[in-house]
Amino acid sequence: MVQTEQITFYSHIYSPYGQRVHIALEEANAAYTFHSIDLMNKPAFYTKEVNPVGKIPAITYGGPKVDPEQPSPESTKLRESGVILEFLADLFPDSGLLPKDPVLRAKARLFITVVDGQPFEGFKGYFFMREPATKLIDGLDALQKQLPATGFAVGEKWTIADIAIAPFLARIFLLLENDLGVYPAGDGKKTLEILRGEKFARLNKYYEDVKAQSSFKATWDEDTQTTIWKSNPMFKRE
Amino acid sequence: MVQTEQITFYSHIYSPYGQRVHIALEEANAAYTFHSIDLMNKPAFYTKEVNPVGKIPAITYGGPKVDPEQPSPESTKLRESGVILEFLADLFPDSGLLPKDPVLRAKARLFITVVDGQPFEGFKGYFFMREPATKLIDGLDALQKQLPATGFAVGEKWTIADIAIAPFLARIFLLLENDLGVYPAGDGKKTLEILRGEKFARLNKYYEDVKAQSSFKATWDEDTQTTIWKSNPMFKRE
Ligand SMILES: N[C@@H](CCC(=O)N[C@@H](CS)C(=O)NCC(=O)O)C(=O)O
Ligand SMILES: N[C@@H](CCC(=O)N[C@@H](CS)C(=O)NCC(=O)O)C(=O)O
Repeated sequence: MVQTEQITFYSHIYSPYGQRVHIALEEANAAYTFHSIDLMNKPAFYTKEVNPVGKIPAITYGGPKVDPEQPSPESTKLRESGVILEFLADLFPDSGLLPKDPVLRAKARLFITVVDGQPFEGFKGYFFMREPATKLIDGLDALQKQLPATGFAVGEKWTIADIAIAPFLARIFLLLENDLGVYPAGDGKKTLEILRGEKFARLNKYYEDVKAQSSFKATWDEDTQTTIWKSNPMFKRE
Repeated sequence: MVQTEQITFYSHIYSPYGQRVHIALEEANAAYTFHSIDLMNKPAFYTKEVNPVGKIPAITYGGPKVDPEQPSPESTKLRESGVILEFLADLFPDSGLLPKDPVLRAKARLFITVVDGQPFEGFKGYFFMREPATKLIDGLDALQKQLPATGFAVGEKWTIADIAIAPFLARIFLLLENDLGVYPAGDGKKTLEILRGEKFARLNKYYEDVKAQSSFKATWDEDTQTTIWKSNPMFKRE
C-alpha cells in the first residue's frame, strides 16, 4: 500500500511503548514526523489535542501537514502502542508486521497477550520498586519458553509480537549492564550473570537476532540510551 | 470467505469471555461444534490437549473432524477471547466483525483496550468481592462516555468492540435484576435503580441495541442464565 496520509509520531526515545511504534514505523518504511514529548514537562497541547490520557506514544494520522505542536482537528488521533501496532500492520499489509495467514496472526497476538501481561511486571518491580529479581527472571524464563527453537515468535521474519517485546529486552539488558536500578550496587551485575547463563541461551540468541534487525537499530542507540538512563534520579546511589 | 476448516468451540454458557467468541461465531455464520466444559469438574483432556492454562474459551481450528473430547494433534489450538475475536475477524473478513477501514479498526481496538482494562474490575469487585458499587457504576459511566451518540462503538453495525462488552452488560443487568451478588439483600435493586436512571439513558439504549442483535440472542437465554446464576453457591444468603 502506498501511504497517502501524513503520520506524526509523538514519543520519547526513553519509552519502551514508544519504541514499539517507532520500530513498526521503520519496519513499514512509513513516512512520519517524530515529535519528542518531554514527560517531565508535558506540553499542554499534547493532552489537550493529541492524547487525553497524556501518555506516550500516540500518533496523528491524516489531515493537513501541520506543525506537530498545533495538531489539526482533522487528523485521527490514536493511542495505545498495541492498537497502533495493529493499525500499522493494517495500513501496511505488505510490511510483514503481521503475517497474512490468520493462524499465524493469531499466534502473534497470543504471544503478545501472554508476554505483555506477565514477564514485564518483573521489569517494573525489580528496577523501580525494590522487588527481588525473581519475578523478572521467572518472567524472562516464561518468555523464553514461548519462543520456538529458532527465529522469531512466529517465523523467520519478526512481527509485532517480537516488536512488542524488543524494547523491554533492550532496557533490561542495558540497565543490568550498567548496574542501574533501585537495587543495591552490584545486584544488577549478579542478575545479569544469571541471565547470561546456559539456562538463558535461547533468550540471548533471540535478543541477538532482535538487535540485528535494521528497524531496531534505527530506533536504539546504546550510547544515548545509557546517558538517559544513567541520569534517572531514581537510580542515584549515595 | 468460504470456511474450509473445522472449528470446535470449547466454552460454557455461563462464561462472559466464552460468550464473546460465541457471538462472533454466530455473527460470522461460522460452522462450528460447541463443546461445553464444566469448570467445576474440568475434564483432563481439556488442559492436556486444548488449553494448557485450562481456561475457557478455546477453539480448535483445522485438522480432521473428530470427537471434541479427543482433539486431533493436527488442529491449531487457540485461546484468549480477544485473540479469537481477531482470528474470526481475519477468517471472515466480510462478516463485519471488524470494519475494513484501518482507522475504524483501530478505534474498535482502542475501545476494547479501554473498556477491558477498567470498567469490569467493578464487575468482579461488586458481585463477587463485597466491594461497594462505586467502581462498577463509575466503570459503566466511563463506558458510556466512550459511546457515540447513537449506534455502536464505531458505527451502525456492531463489531468485536461491542461483542467484547455485551456479555458483561448482560450479566450485570441480569444479576442486578435478580438481586444476585455477595452484597446484602436489596443492594442489587438499589444499584439497578441508579443504572436505570436518567444519567445512564445512553447506556440503557446501547444495551437495548445489543440485545436486539440476532447473534446476541442466539447466545443468551435469559431463563437459562437466571437459573445458572441463581444456583451459584457464592450468592446464597442466610
Ligand atoms: N498502555 C500504554 C502505556 C503507555 C505508557 O505507559 N507510557 C508511559 C511512558 S513509557 C507514559 O507516557 N507515562 C507518562 C504519564 O503517564 O504521564 C501503551 O501501550 O501505549
Ligand atoms: N483472558 C481470558 C480469560 C478467560 C477466563 O478467565 N475464563 C474463566 C471463565 S469466565 C475460566 O476459564 N476460569 C476457570 C479457570 O481458570 O480454571 C480470555 O479472555 O479468554
